[in-house]
Amino acid sequence: MKICVLGSGSWGTALAQVLADNHHDVVVWGKSPEEIADLKLHRNTKYFPEVLVNPAIEATLDFAVVASADILLLAVPTGAVEEVSRQAAAVLNHPVIVINVAKGFHPTTHKRLSEVIKECFTPQTLTDVVSLIGPSHAEEVILRKLTSVNAVCENEASAKQIQELFSNEYFRVYRGTDVIGSETGVAIKNIMAIASGIITGLGEGDNARAALMTRGLAEMSRYGIAQGGRAETYLGLTGVGDLIVTCTSQHSRNFQAGVQIGRQDSAEIFWKTNKKTVEGVKAAKVIYEESIKKHISMPITEQVYRVLYEGEKPSKAIKLLMARELKSE
Amino acid sequence: MKICVLGSGSWGTALAQVLADNHHDVVVWGKSPEEIADLKLHRNTKYFPEVLVNPAIEATLDFAVVASADILLLAVPTGAVEEVSRQAAAVLNHPVIVINVAKGFHPTTHKRLSEVIKECFTPQTLTDVVSLIGPSHAEEVILRKLTSVNAVCENEASAKQIQELFSNEYFRVYRGTDVIGSETGVAIKNIMAIASGIITGLGEGDNARAALMTRGLAEMSRYGIAQGGRAETYLGLTGVGDLIVTCTSQHSRNFQAGVQIGRQDSAEIFWKTNKKTVEGVKAAKVIYEESIKKHISMPITEQVYRVLYEGEKPSKAIKLLMARELKSE
Repeated sequence: MKICVLGSGSWGTALAQVLADNHHDVVVWGKSPEEIADLKLHRNTKYFPEVLVNPAIEATLDFAVVASADILLLAVPTGAVEEVSRQAAAVLNHPVIVINVAKGFHPTTHKRLSEVIKECFTPQTLTDVVSLIGPSHAEEVILRKLTSVNAVCENEASAKQIQELFSNEYFRVYRGTDVIGSETGVAIKNIMAIASGIITGLGEGDNARAALMTRGLAEMSRYGIAQGGRAETYLGLTGVGDLIVTCTSQHSRNFQAGVQIGRQDSAEIFWKTNKKTVEGVKAAKVIYEESIKKHISMPITEQVYRVLYEGEKPSKAIKLLMARELKSE
Repeated sequence: MKICVLGSGSWGTALAQVLADNHHDVVVWGKSPEEIADLKLHRNTKYFPEVLVNPAIEATLDFAVVASADILLLAVPTGAVEEVSRQAAAVLNHPVIVINVAKGFHPTTHKRLSEVIKECFTPQTLTDVVSLIGPSHAEEVILRKLTSVNAVCENEASAKQIQELFSNEYFRVYRGTDVIGSETGVAIKNIMAIASGIITGLGEGDNARAALMTRGLAEMSRYGIAQGGRAETYLGLTGVGDLIVTCTSQHSRNFQAGVQIGRQDSAEIFWKTNKKTVEGVKAAKVIYEESIKKHISMPITEQVYRVLYEGEKPSKAIKLLMARELKSE
């Protein structure tokens, strides 16, 4: 079984190491000569300067390596998923399982990423798309710290295959079939992480953050269920699990963006200075627009959208959220 | 409306201040002359050395003050709830609403605290017991930081009365009627906080903690539903909300106890040196025994029990938890 990891960033490297630790044949493709040269020396200096990665991981700049893979793992940023999928499909002449680890939506069609990927392949080049998602910071996986994620696919046999491929002592993989529930959960939680950061940046504490996450979980599940997801999914790793890790961890880019916006009580400087991809910023636009179209009540998403895209002051947005009528939960 | 707060500790003081901020007539009874003298000077030096509390709060050592109260707020440790309730009932000659803020179970009968309180009163002295519970550290409430809790009572009119009594700009009160679900949730989450601390003390990271909390939420709701609680309660403030705040906050005594036990990979020193009440330690015994009797699968509670009461090594307990068969969530 030959697995090709597309993307030499933090998550690509960490997951390649899980596979190498499990004695699978794994090669990482990347387009950065520095990163690939680094990986050949068993290093990923950019993301994990102090780590020597499993030396069994191979690395290449040659995209043709895709042609000999049985499984492709797409570890590129959300915005590159479509393009890299098309390129991969073009060089394949046999069907593969594609593993998706990105979280978000297509910026214009608003489709989920597994849908976007599927449309790039044909039955001759694709068996299934399996999303491998859940509460998992690459910084911990690379150190082989205990991590649990979910392999999700409508076709349970494919989910099971990916579950078995990755599972080991430190990397525990569950499996699920609620693709809609899981994929919307892990994407919307990034919006809640921005809100959680904003409230922290405004000087509020753990009480406020816990309350916000609670209402955020309700909001996430309301949206997912309206799209066809299952309620119980939001109680699992791709629901509450991923929400917790993203809203409470210093590793999270979405949370940190929120903290900055909260401290400055404005998104203006964030827009002027931010150079990194903050997935929740994109997801807030997609989900806000979808919620209007489909009449789904998303009060937290709405306020995050107003802060990001309409110049609303975070302190005022939070007051609006809190001023809602006294009611039963 | 005269409210008597029984207990001059951190939570009694913080909630008395919420009531005083809302311009209610509030008196705190306590048995420590130092604490009461301190409160009369608008201070609670023991818990909040840097805070000047609302000067409208009155304080007394005279338990007879109970006789003139319309509402009693029981802010004593879980272990003292029964005794103080009996004493209060003995001096009352009219019915009052009793607000319960303690979290746990009776150590021998295993009853929930609102049940314990009810049995101490008569229809001549009690209107209703309302539990005011949710994700709330006193350290933040005293600073008037944003906090949301739930007022829970089978009789919604009483829940609504308490909701309106406490609600203001920084203290948001929802209301609920699922007493079983809410009371078991806030008590069992203390066991999960110990487990969360243990896993942190053993050197694991945010990924492991998020996964543990996810499985912990499932375990909490499994137990509560088997006792007659409602599933949706676990998605609210007294379920996931309180779980998050206790498992991720440095303020939590349960979490800190777990960290110590994890670091030493043994509960031995904890038992020898701990002088504080750690509610989750008691709850672990009650819930473990009940789960055996009622055949409810509680794998995390079981391992916490074994670590605390049977000398199991935490590192071995965690391995057992992780070694469960690969499965769907």
